[in-house]
Amino acid sequence: MNTKKVAIVGASGYSGEELVRLLLHHPHVELVAVTSRQYAGQTLAQVFPKFASHPQSQVLRFSEPNAALLATQADVVFLALPHGVAAEFAVPLLDKGCVVIDLSADFRLESAEVYKEFYGHDHPAPDLLGKAAYGLPEIHREDIKQSMLIASPGCYPTSILLPTIPLLKAGLVKTTGIIADSLSGVSGAGRKADPDYLFCECNESVRPYGVPKHRHLSEIEEQLSLAAGTEVIIQFTPHLIPVNRGILTTLYLGPAKHFSNAAEMDELGHAIAASYAAAYGDEPFVRLLEGKSLPDTKNVVGTNVIEIAWRLDPRTGRLIVMSAEDNLVKGASGQAVQSLNLVCGFPETAGLV
Amino acid sequence: MNTKKVAIVGASGYSGEELVRLLLHHPHVELVAVTSRQYAGQTLAQVFPKFASHPQSQVLRFSEPNAALLATQADVVFLALPHGVAAEFAVPLLDKGCVVIDLSADFRLESAEVYKEFYGHDHPAPDLLGKAAYGLPEIHREDIKQSMLIASPGCYPTSILLPTIPLLKAGLVKTTGIIADSLSGVSGAGRKADPDYLFCECNESVRPYGVPKHRHLSEIEEQLSLAAGTEVIIQFTPHLIPVNRGILTTLYLGPAKHFSNAAEMDELGHAIAASYAAAYGDEPFVRLLEGKSLPDTKNVVGTNVIEIAWRLDPRTGRLIVMSAEDNLVKGASGQAVQSLNLVCGFPETAGLV
Amino acid sequence: MNTKKVAIVGASGYSGEELVRLLLHHPHVELVAVTSRQYAGQTLAQVFPKFASHPQSQVLRFSEPNAALLATQADVVFLALPHGVAAEFAVPLLDKGCVVIDLSADFRLESAEVYKEFYGHDHPAPDLLGKAAYGLPEIHREDIKQSMLIASPGCYPTSILLPTIPLLKAGLVKTTGIIADSLSGVSGAGRKADPDYLFCECNESVRPYGVPKHRHLSEIEEQLSLAAGTEVIIQFTPHLIPVNRGILTTLYLGPAKHFSNAAEMDELGHAIAASYAAAYGDEPFVRLLEGKSLPDTKNVVGTNVIEIAWRLDPRTGRLIVMSAEDNLVKGASGQAVQSLNLVCGFPETAGLV
Amino acid sequence: MNTKKVAIVGASGYSGEELVRLLLHHPHVELVAVTSRQYAGQTLAQVFPKFASHPQSQVLRFSEPNAALLATQADVVFLALPHGVAAEFAVPLLDKGCVVIDLSADFRLESAEVYKEFYGHDHPAPDLLGKAAYGLPEIHREDIKQSMLIASPGCYPTSILLPTIPLLKAGLVKTTGIIADSLSGVSGAGRKADPDYLFCECNESVRPYGVPKHRHLSEIEEQLSLAAGTEVIIQFTPHLIPVNRGILTTLYLGPAKHFSNAAEMDELGHAIAASYAAAYGDEPFVRLLEGKSLPDTKNVVGTNVIEIAWRLDPRTGRLIVMSAEDNLVKGASGQAVQSLNLVCGFPETAGLV
Repeated sequence: MNTKKVAIVGASGYSGEELVRLLLHHPHVELVAVTSRQYAGQTLAQVFPKFASHPQSQVLRFSEPNAALLATQADVVFLALPHGVAAEFAVPLLDKGCVVIDLSADFRLESAEVYKEFYGHDHPAPDLLGKAAYGLPEIHREDIKQSMLIASPGCYPTSILLPTIPLLKAGLVKTTGIIADSLSGVSGAGRKADPDYLFCECNESVRPYGVPKHRHLSEIEEQLSLAAGTEVIIQFTPHLIPVNRGILTTLYLGPAKHFSNAAEMDELGHAIAASYAAAYGDEPFVRLLEGKSLPDTKNVVGTNVIEIAWRLDPRTGRLIVMSAEDNLVKGASGQAVQSLNLVCGFPETAGLV
Repeated sequence: MNTKKVAIVGASGYSGEELVRLLLHHPHVELVAVTSRQYAGQTLAQVFPKFASHPQSQVLRFSEPNAALLATQADVVFLALPHGVAAEFAVPLLDKGCVVIDLSADFRLESAEVYKEFYGHDHPAPDLLGKAAYGLPEIHREDIKQSMLIASPGCYPTSILLPTIPLLKAGLVKTTGIIADSLSGVSGAGRKADPDYLFCECNESVRPYGVPKHRHLSEIEEQLSLAAGTEVIIQFTPHLIPVNRGILTTLYLGPAKHFSNAAEMDELGHAIAASYAAAYGDEPFVRLLEGKSLPDTKNVVGTNVIEIAWRLDPRTGRLIVMSAEDNLVKGASGQAVQSLNLVCGFPETAGLV
Repeated sequence: MNTKKVAIVGASGYSGEELVRLLLHHPHVELVAVTSRQYAGQTLAQVFPKFASHPQSQVLRFSEPNAALLATQADVVFLALPHGVAAEFAVPLLDKGCVVIDLSADFRLESAEVYKEFYGHDHPAPDLLGKAAYGLPEIHREDIKQSMLIASPGCYPTSILLPTIPLLKAGLVKTTGIIADSLSGVSGAGRKADPDYLFCECNESVRPYGVPKHRHLSEIEEQLSLAAGTEVIIQFTPHLIPVNRGILTTLYLGPAKHFSNAAEMDELGHAIAASYAAAYGDEPFVRLLEGKSLPDTKNVVGTNVIEIAWRLDPRTGRLIVMSAEDNLVKGASGQAVQSLNLVCGFPETAGLV
Repeated sequence: MNTKKVAIVGASGYSGEELVRLLLHHPHVELVAVTSRQYAGQTLAQVFPKFASHPQSQVLRFSEPNAALLATQADVVFLALPHGVAAEFAVPLLDKGCVVIDLSADFRLESAEVYKEFYGHDHPAPDLLGKAAYGLPEIHREDIKQSMLIASPGCYPTSILLPTIPLLKAGLVKTTGIIADSLSGVSGAGRKADPDYLFCECNESVRPYGVPKHRHLSEIEEQLSLAAGTEVIIQFTPHLIPVNRGILTTLYLGPAKHFSNAAEMDELGHAIAASYAAAYGDEPFVRLLEGKSLPDTKNVVGTNVIEIAWRLDPRTGRLIVMSAEDNLVKGASGQAVQSLNLVCGFPETAGLV
């Protein structure tokens, strides 16, 4: 299998660092460039001592981000940049024929208006909107394989979309009244020097934020609408909890067909189980929990796996679905590498197990 | 003001320990007995070094629980015992004229059948059901003042009932479709040697549990039904998060009257604000947040305060209400002391600020 | 007892916030001013929601720091400012007759040269050096009572000096070869937006820092030398650990008189116990642990208490002394209030239990 | 390369679980048996959901520990059993020709008397003492390669021995007066249901324990004495800190040759650097830090690497050496796999990077 040359732009944040970890050990990848204005000139080993055991970390130095140069060095470029900045950086790379896998929100939406509504500024490259594949491999695998531009999903969207889409597609749940209550570790806020994320402000603290209109709603609703074939508006409440990594999402869904006794509940249960089995039974990175097991972030941290469990409540008639993922792996960098594998024709699990 | 003699049965668990802390410093209370089978014979200072600076901790020794003896020593007895055990212990104390403030679930319900459904065994003293005051002072203050038996509420119920009851009473929200999503610190599981609550099993872990039918639903729904004047069934999902103390509850409520534009939303908002102000504007232990503030457990830990904030979502038409409390104080021992103050005629905030 | 009017300059950092907490509840103090450039104009309740239950927090607003104005408002001014800034601010306050209790390092040393060596800049008010009382009440109580300027000790120094000084004064340990190995919670680094103190950089991390010459050595050695009557140079290694609050110090000391059998070890043990009992037996804020107990920061967090325990090691002939304190209370703000009580003639424990 | 069949006895504790993780992914190993009385009959995936993505976890079931049976199944058996139990289990395995890699303390010492002194009971298989290789590959590589019985070192000993032995062998530090101050994550206490290790008892707590005579001293001193060629007695103080994994050790050493000026200090520094470079310059799992870097457990957690840094203190004349490791990897299971690789002739880093 041919090795691909890969670069990471914005490699000093948490997602970028996680990309470095995964790509250094990827069997079919050569990591040829990492950029960071702050650390330009230093080796990977100097900035991230934990990678120092890898030989490449001793020689690869952070460089200033330079799209023209990167385009000559790399076949595939990961962008781990802030929203707004990523789009501008992507254009020259795409022009030169690089595959771009963007971890920002810049290419996740189809509509420039929705982008502006949720991100507060005009889209920097509206011509490219709608041209990217949404990089959720379990849902858009074929698109990803054929795309030069992949918009890797957000961490919250991944934790909500994967459990919900099969049920919507199968018509098992209502498209209205969906609630997603999510709990995220602090790395989701990025490595930025904001007092709100100091250790003493987060430790022994639990708090909601961004209520009721978080930015990620835009891509969540666009993808859910696509799956449902009708416009879907959901309720989404994120909370910050004192762990480094992990997102736990609890979803409240209304069954499309009301059940009023144990037999009907069983029937619905079988349909739900069958729907998940059909969607994810062969997926290497989706773990459908059985028996009494419920998701726990500690079972997925450091892996590209999302755990999913569900319960029907005979008292309320509602369906509760719960998921757990590592926000930096399946919710960001691991999923981006999964897309890399697809677009490059590597085994989908390469570098991820 | 006359001092009352007070005892704590089961003083070695987390709620018991918190009662010790509060009662040692209470201006109108003499702590005359603390019981614990495990620590009988040892002083408070030996078992809990953090209380060693208080002179009483040097002389007060844990004793074996003995209802007959306690009845001769104390005017008021707090029971911090497991469910099922508390009821049996209460009977002889009540017979001897003691006031009993019970932190277990044994007297929180009116119905022996509901008790059996949720707790899995027959109620040990069914004659007493319906005779206790439910010890939520902001809702049942007059009942508490006149009762010899006070059933102090559970931690989750407190975090759900206080934000919801005023809205139900005012008819502002629907009685159906209520969802409570709660996050609790690990002390809620008690000081028991269960591997599930070891440091390494909880740290860097977030997980739901007890889905979909947690025991606390019984008292939550009984109290909500009482407030609404109709039977209320809710959805409740507890989660375990790695903090010592604190419960953060996010409630999803449907406005009784649909709003379809900004003016109607404002009108509803004013009604909600007015309802909360009327219910809690003068309450010393309810903090109604204003402006952009949202609840954060770190602002209430160690205090008897519950924080409440709410948001109307114009996109979904839903009302989101969030609360934060210390599960061991407002959710357990602090609230029990608040009831003590009421029943003894002390200032309601005595020993709690 | 006359109430004193008190101000806090730099009230938005962790030490300042802890001073606010203590002084709002102090029975003989009126908190008349709190300053913060960042929060000027906002009330205490707005900046620190956890204090919102105190009536004073609703009306007291942060102001810009203005020494001339503060001198007209307050009898006593606490300075919770960075090193270097505090000294300049103190001068006009002292000139106007205010008592100044400074939590910075600016007045802790006698020598301007030592100050420059350890803090890297000239002392801004060298005339005042040597005129301040070193605010360690258990050691310098009489000085503090009579001083207009009190240099409240650092958190590490407190954890080292209190366990060591009685042994040095009694001649029980050698003045050479002393090692202090200390572990501090993250609040010791202050509320500053430095990526090193982000949650994800501190959680699941343990690390030494400032090896081998930490700034606090200057005041530690000056005070130890004073106690020993000879120059004392020690080894000091601080470590950062993922807790909000608390310092645990382990001291390695050489007995002045070698012991070579159990009887001699017992004799030395009795002398050590007697020395500590004489020094601290009546001290309200020093807890001498007995039996098998060892210090644990969780037993002192939130209190002004320091726990001390010691062990003689027959295998090495060494004395191990361990202490635990809350770095923000006994290690900073609580101790400063203890000095306030002394200088104002209040009971020494006022506002601290 | 021939694959070896490997079993783990006691696979449900933290060390056992970590062995499972490493061996499932080891390229030259087939994991054929895992034992646990508690979980016998259940699959690996059922007990440890985080391994469920590995196909072997779906079919491999925990069995009751049965040495005779295991001897027919496995070429190499890892024992992750409590002290005392391991030795009895090892005898029949060795008799049948299995290689035994023991993670307990049972074979780490040469002397049955020392074992009894530190472990409180007679050694169960004294004939085997002195026949095991001490499984510290960087020090005893050749012994390990030729041994059928490998005593894998303790976590604290590893963190102390690796930084100290090269200096002792080179005669650069005194053999007397050595102090090791260590901080360990809670997984070091094992997965046992002891209230002392509950989340709420460890979180926001820091405490020393086992002062002054911890069991691990026996193997530390035996190995140091071996390296020094003379009896070495050290001071060792372990502390418990609220992280899942990691040990940070700070060592206080006296240079063999006193230095009294900068030139002499530089000379000694060169000798120390040269000694470490000679000992570990080519070691894949020892990272010698340079420049201003100091060890941080977060840089080694999850890896088999130990970080080492050192500083000479011109003020005290002392040498400070600091190390960081993952107590469950380099301090236990990773190091045991390193020994497996040596004894089986695999590349030493197989399965460990």
